[in-house]
Amino acid sequence: MRSTPAWQHPLGAPALERVTIERRELRADDLAVRVEYCGVCHSDLHQINDVAGRRTGPLVPGHEFVGTVTETGADVTGFAPGDKVAIGTIVDSCGACPMCLAGRENYCAEFPTVTYGAVDRVDGLPTHGGYSREYVLREKFAHHLPAGLDPAAAAPLMCAGITVWEPLRAAGIGPGSKVAVAGLGGLGHLAVKLAVALGAEVTVLSRTPDKAADATGLGARALLVTSDEAAMAGARGRFDLVLDTISAPHDLNLMLSTVAVDGTLSVLGFFGEAPVQLMGLLLGAKKLSSSATGGLAETARMLEFCGTHGITADVEVLPSARVNEVLERLERGDVRYRFVLDVADLDEEPARVV
Amino acid sequence: MRSTPAWQHPLGAPALERVTIERRELRADDLAVRVEYCGVCHSDLHQINDVAGRRTGPLVPGHEFVGTVTETGADVTGFAPGDKVAIGTIVDSCGACPMCLAGRENYCAEFPTVTYGAVDRVDGLPTHGGYSREYVLREKFAHHLPAGLDPAAAAPLMCAGITVWEPLRAAGIGPGSKVAVAGLGGLGHLAVKLAVALGAEVTVLSRTPDKAADATGLGARALLVTSDEAAMAGARGRFDLVLDTISAPHDLNLMLSTVAVDGTLSVLGFFGEAPVQLMGLLLGAKKLSSSATGGLAETARMLEFCGTHGITADVEVLPSARVNEVLERLERGDVRYRFVLDVADLDEEPARVV
Repeated sequence: MRSTPAWQHPLGAPALERVTIERRELRADDLAVRVEYCGVCHSDLHQINDVAGRRTGPLVPGHEFVGTVTETGADVTGFAPGDKVAIGTIVDSCGACPMCLAGRENYCAEFPTVTYGAVDRVDGLPTHGGYSREYVLREKFAHHLPAGLDPAAAAPLMCAGITVWEPLRAAGIGPGSKVAVAGLGGLGHLAVKLAVALGAEVTVLSRTPDKAADATGLGARALLVTSDEAAMAGARGRFDLVLDTISAPHDLNLMLSTVAVDGTLSVLGFFGEAPVQLMGLLLGAKKLSSSATGGLAETARMLEFCGTHGITADVEVLPSARVNEVLERLERGDVRYRFVLDVADLDEEPARVV
Repeated sequence: MRSTPAWQHPLGAPALERVTIERRELRADDLAVRVEYCGVCHSDLHQINDVAGRRTGPLVPGHEFVGTVTETGADVTGFAPGDKVAIGTIVDSCGACPMCLAGRENYCAEFPTVTYGAVDRVDGLPTHGGYSREYVLREKFAHHLPAGLDPAAAAPLMCAGITVWEPLRAAGIGPGSKVAVAGLGGLGHLAVKLAVALGAEVTVLSRTPDKAADATGLGARALLVTSDEAAMAGARGRFDLVLDTISAPHDLNLMLSTVAVDGTLSVLGFFGEAPVQLMGLLLGAKKLSSSATGGLAETARMLEFCGTHGITADVEVLPSARVNEVLERLERGDVRYRFVLDVADLDEEPARVV
């Protein structure tokens, strides 16, 4: 086994702690990656807080990161040491079901092996995430980072980016499309950038007008305040796609009212239960949907698109030693628009427990 | 004005009464139709009981009927006296919005004029439904009844039939598709027939096994009892499309669990509010949808398809004088699978109030 420093959350503990974790020795199709920048996702918070009540032990979060290949297994053909790579939420899958064969490993019939908090399909050991200095994974699940993208700002593309990219693609968004993005956070700001670059007319829906300048700065034509009844009535039936990235419980029916005939409300930030008025779906053949990050095929397309269009996240990069402060700020929404941990400081011997 | 006998429900009254209502004199593009058979739809009951609380006066229900053209306006070109016609839920629309131009008048931007309980776009008079002996409407909204279809059994195609046809078509159902139909009633039994004729493998989901023989008789491969947890677990992720025709509140999340990746749960029988687990949509990019009967284009395709395949409803035909008994039996689900009123008895002078 190999060892690497990491930020780990003991189940029920108040904070993450710097520990040394083990990584497997490289198998023939494995890469070792020196992690450099790891985005901090809202679902990291959910996992740390064990919202789903499924945790059984300590957790090393992190599933959107960028790094450099340091070693390759004997059979690796697509990567060499020194390559910049981007890793997302999935590090293995059955590889044989129709979804895997279609490059949609996020819907693997056996459920994909996620980047942290899962169990490796071969050795049965737990997966630990990118809040660490080294990651070992199958080359199939690594992506080359497009040249020209800032590595720290590109890291969030691997979860936040692909999460909004898949529904944009599924809805066939392009020139002439009208897209609304509800909630301007980590997912939302990337949704605006991607939808604008795809040619859509984009509107931001937000609880407050605070981010109106940010919205238009990102390329949106306007920000509508969801509590402004007149503005929301004016937007009734307008959008081909509403990407709802709000993570707190909220009124989905208000969002549905803004969807056009045949359009889709894609709920990407909230995973609980919500009351839905069926009549709101009926009057317009509307669809309520959701989707789970992305498979390899769309992730590759998204990265290529972002490379071509120079799209990355707006990030605040902080040394990983400040991870607990970062999580606390994320919890209260104090971020524009994605925190990224610079994990190089994990190489230093810690002076004290942070 | 013209006059015709009809079954009318005074707001708040315990029963429908035989009355004489007025119809407009024919405009240039109008047909007069002698109504012969009118299906009894669950939404007739909703309207009679004023579930939505929007009624302001008496109501003549009926929006799926078949009859014979008796007169035509000066500009009518598509019909002649003696033609058998089928009329559905919509009798006018703006004709100018993108949806109307696409033959999807059910999603008219100005809301379509429905067959009863609405207001005519030209003269402002209330529309009265097919529980009557004559109907007057624009020829554009009448369809030729395909030769060879029994008129009484074809009447329910115009609401129940098209309501299930549109989502079958929207989902691209054909050979190789797996379809579930939840609830084997007026809509459900036609959904089974249409899906089977489209080439799909069809499964019925029902609260009880009572209708298992009926289900397979209609062409379904099996009936699964929704309270049978093992059976429902076995059906997890199986269906490309679940047509949920159950009119009572029920667990949509159980239905969603049976939907395949990229599949759709189309809720067609219940129009209230229901709790939806977003995680159930996320784990499979599933869609929750609904749709509102059909436009002229799909109605024409549906009728042609039914003519080719000999598809009609399984009906119990009763004289219209028994309408109150029929509604009472419908309310308690005592119907296999659609009541149709034979309104010829409206020509007779009533011996007594029924």
